[in-house]
Amino acid sequence: MPATFRYQRRAQFHETDLAGIVHFSWYFRYMEEAEHALWRHVGLSISPPKPEFGFPRVNATCDFKAPLKFEDEFEVEIAVEALGRRSIRYRCTLWRGTDVMATGSMTSACVTRDEQGQVRSIEVPEVIASRLR
Amino acid sequence: MPATFRYQRRAQFHETDLAGIVHFSWYFRYMEEAEHALWRHVGLSISPPKPEFGFPRVNATCDFKAPLKFEDEFEVEIAVEALGRRSIRYRCTLWRGTDVMATGSMTSACVTRDEQGQVRSIEVPEVIASRLR
Amino acid sequence: MPATFRYQRRAQFHETDLAGIVHFSWYFRYMEEAEHALWRHVGLSISPPKPEFGFPRVNATCDFKAPLKFEDEFEVEIAVEALGRRSIRYRCTLWRGTDVMATGSMTSACVTRDEQGQVRSIEVPEVIASRLR
Amino acid sequence: MPATFRYQRRAQFHETDLAGIVHFSWYFRYMEEAEHALWRHVGLSISPPKPEFGFPRVNATCDFKAPLKFEDEFEVEIAVEALGRRSIRYRCTLWRGTDVMATGSMTSACVTRDEQGQVRSIEVPEVIASRLR
Repeated sequence: MPATFRYQRRAQFHETDLAGIVHFSWYFRYMEEAEHALWRHVGLSISPPKPEFGFPRVNATCDFKAPLKFEDEFEVEIAVEALGRRSIRYRCTLWRGTDVMATGSMTSACVTRDEQGQVRSIEVPEVIASRLR
Repeated sequence: MPATFRYQRRAQFHETDLAGIVHFSWYFRYMEEAEHALWRHVGLSISPPKPEFGFPRVNATCDFKAPLKFEDEFEVEIAVEALGRRSIRYRCTLWRGTDVMATGSMTSACVTRDEQGQVRSIEVPEVIASRLR
Repeated sequence: MPATFRYQRRAQFHETDLAGIVHFSWYFRYMEEAEHALWRHVGLSISPPKPEFGFPRVNATCDFKAPLKFEDEFEVEIAVEALGRRSIRYRCTLWRGTDVMATGSMTSACVTRDEQGQVRSIEVPEVIASRLR
Repeated sequence: MPATFRYQRRAQFHETDLAGIVHFSWYFRYMEEAEHALWRHVGLSISPPKPEFGFPRVNATCDFKAPLKFEDEFEVEIAVEALGRRSIRYRCTLWRGTDVMATGSMTSACVTRDEQGQVRSIEVPEVIASRLR
């Protein structure tokens, strides 16, 4: 069963724009903050002291349902939707109380840097996969 | 025929993260900067002095093909992919030279605020639609 | 006696840069987040529903002592250092455990918009001053 | 004589906040963008391919004179105010036409990482100092 997690957040002043609402680019950062909180929750860090691998984004998408405003408290519900051999896909829902403010997804590839410094796709290490399951 | 536009940009230091590449959230801002440059190019502003309408995002998506790095010069090619009665969808391609770094899209709804302060969907004003065509 | 407050925070991935540490511009946002948390703590909001006044920055300064890193937990200790008739100055210290990571200050003027739309300096409303004292 | 440079910029939508003006934290990023443009102008990069040294901020300060708004075109005039043995201080003025919008400064220390991974202050390499003079 995939790991699920709820991440608490409050919308900050510097995240709003002149339209008076949170700028849409922030929803992607909220989802990422939730991802990293999920990793911490299962005993991992997306940025270990000596990284042999990384997880660059392959895709990110978001459907915006209702605007978040300054000082709004909300939650990002995140789940590992698909744990592939070489990639991880998350599914997120942003809740303000019982209202869905947005839904989105993020897909990351697992990569390493070979001896020539080239980035190449590798399998998600079992130490990570096992904890995200 | 839809308006197309190429927006020039250079990746800035504060846009990178500890992985040494531009943070994925910036691609959405690059696409929006290109959208607003396109609007200026056709004689419009997304934020007129007395706005009776606005264009909040309904959806944004991006496929990341290759990482942008600090000081990279790149272009965002943006086109109005669909000019609906009540929404606008843009299609973007980020180029670094002849390499496609990312492709993405953004959809905005046209809304107004009625006398009770409620946001509601309206038709894209002809003064805007005619210029984006 | 001036209001003092401690605001808890964790450094996020998107706040780091390619040097592997939190970008210096974020320290100013951390201080502002602490300011707004302080306002909430004393029953105020920097952005009331019907604002007749605002608090644009007049000055901000920061001395950086040690770098914050991804996932670091830290606190912003904020105090109203000077409550002038027309301005407010805050003094901040960023702590990671018992280490001072940075010290800084922010000064805001109290302004309103007159009937011609011109911004002009006004006295800090007593409803606000009394709570920040 | 110190190097001086003028960096052209336009305020972007995502840089504004709900007060309808550019968020103050952006002025620090504008100053840094100007610094890096100055470095490129004299044939340097703040982030060389194989860095043996870095330039973390020691202090940053800004006096805000007038608000920048969405789509404003402005210039950052930057000069090396003091080229110390182990640090560099810049002085910046933000101009919108003939109006001074802000003045500020940034000081960076020159550091390296020794074999134990400890950051320590070093002298600004002559290859850099000579070009910034």
